[in-house]
Amino acid sequence: MSELDLLRLIRSRVPPLGPGIVLGIGDDCAIFRPRGSREDLVFTTDMVLEDVHFRRQTHPGEIVGWRALARGLSDIAAMGAQPRFCLVSLALAPWADDAWVDAFYRGLTRLARMTGTTVAGGDLARAEKLACDVAVCGSVPRGKALRRDGARPGDAIYVSGRLGGAALGLETRSGAAWNKHATPEPRLSLGVFVRERLRATAALDLSDGLSLDLHRLCLASGAGAEIAGRDMPVFAGATIEQALHGGEDYELLFTLRPRAKVPELYEGLRLTRIGVITEGTPGLVLLDGRPLEAGGYDHFRSR
Amino acid sequence: MSELDLLRLIRSRVPPLGPGIVLGIGDDCAIFRPRGSREDLVFTTDMVLEDVHFRRQTHPGEIVGWRALARGLSDIAAMGAQPRFCLVSLALAPWADDAWVDAFYRGLTRLARMTGTTVAGGDLARAEKLACDVAVCGSVPRGKALRRDGARPGDAIYVSGRLGGAALGLETRSGAAWNKHATPEPRLSLGVFVRERLRATAALDLSDGLSLDLHRLCLASGAGAEIAGRDMPVFAGATIEQALHGGEDYELLFTLRPRAKVPELYEGLRLTRIGVITEGTPGLVLLDGRPLEAGGYDHFRSR
Repeated sequence: MSELDLLRLIRSRVPPLGPGIVLGIGDDCAIFRPRGSREDLVFTTDMVLEDVHFRRQTHPGEIVGWRALARGLSDIAAMGAQPRFCLVSLALAPWADDAWVDAFYRGLTRLARMTGTTVAGGDLARAEKLACDVAVCGSVPRGKALRRDGARPGDAIYVSGRLGGAALGLETRSGAAWNKHATPEPRLSLGVFVRERLRATAALDLSDGLSLDLHRLCLASGAGAEIAGRDMPVFAGATIEQALHGGEDYELLFTLRPRAKVPELYEGLRLTRIGVITEGTPGLVLLDGRPLEAGGYDHFRSR
Repeated sequence: MSELDLLRLIRSRVPPLGPGIVLGIGDDCAIFRPRGSREDLVFTTDMVLEDVHFRRQTHPGEIVGWRALARGLSDIAAMGAQPRFCLVSLALAPWADDAWVDAFYRGLTRLARMTGTTVAGGDLARAEKLACDVAVCGSVPRGKALRRDGARPGDAIYVSGRLGGAALGLETRSGAAWNKHATPEPRLSLGVFVRERLRATAALDLSDGLSLDLHRLCLASGAGAEIAGRDMPVFAGATIEQALHGGEDYELLFTLRPRAKVPELYEGLRLTRIGVITEGTPGLVLLDGRPLEAGGYDHFRSR
């Protein structure tokens, strides 16, 4: 089963959305509208598993903790929301001693402090391999959350920053690329800017690679996309393959009305127009006129 | 490190509570107050791990799915709240085929439907061993959530149902005791009754065993407790040891003002007075006059 097949199975099973649930399974976050509140709440949860998302020889505790929270915060950013709190579930492996646990929480809480995220609770257990799951709640003005299904033909496609750095960093384990992999910075203030000022029509965070994430945005929006290789903002030293399929860059991918005015930089971060939404086959992305395989990371693809 | 030591370490690391967070780490749920809302939201998250919380030879997928959600719903019940939605993180082991995954969601969504809980999102991955983490959100009238720190000397201590059944069921794997273990029913309507009608001073769900959970309630409330063995509502066939230390009964433990009037049965469920809160050493529980060791389940105790 691919992840999509699995999601189809899950959706066929789950009961209809209850009161207050504005958006369920399928976007970066679920959206919940508390009774009488002017704000919507958005929720996401992400696992970080030993030997799947990290290796203990490569990733010190501080980096595992930072990344465990960063994954969810990046989803919050993609909704144009601000983080409020998180819940941290942690199953400790026998090798994880007191110093490792302390480092894990040091990394996680450093990012929590920087982003105004309260660590409100969690669960603890022991297991053979270390496993962590972090749920994050964010808030956004009522009805204003950015979704992945709002892109329309003619909309311009943008990405923030430079792509492929995280994949390069995991390969070389040094320099700026390693930092990009080890301590990604969720684009929270950019998410708010893109929602409030640029009035984005859709957004997604680049967690699994541009090719797969853009495919998902197009599929949800019932549209196609055309992008140009020469416009791709490739991270210094990375290959175009890493930029297209690398994953874990945690930059924002967003679409704007054709005439939207976009600054070249936002808080020092480059914003690059890489293409346009089309009336093509839903989900189909053309790179320089040729179909681009959604080659990003999918746990459930047989390889 | 014991679980308490670990919690101490975590608390020393986490930043102060941000706006809207009424209660953080340490109770069954965290409490969040959305801006302008008449309701508080309560949040909990619980892991269910292969070979820790279940074994695949013993527990079919449907039971693992049911129990994965039941753990969180029981925490929601203990706050006197009503469930709204859940997020389901699932890491699938190689042995978990399509039929198992389908059964898992069948079990989880059966309980979700019965309790009005929307499955709003989650995360999927593959791992060596199956791991699941379910976060649940509930709602409760503003300021009314039941906590574990409100018990006062003189308050009566009550439990719902009969204790030790889940431990007996795991041992015998048959009959009513097995059902008690396999498909526990979170005491959601009782939780609301206890909060609204009985005006409980404190509550907790019996997840780790009465001896440990009552110790926790007393510690949080800065009080002691005296309970009587002869008053213990022991599940038919279970030992007093299983009733005191067994865990996973998911009944409610609650305290009431001395003169509160309590029906013997609530919706067919027995409510039993088992003792009284005292001015004794905070956290110390006396059973028939002798200190009762907190012998329930603690992942982090060295045994």
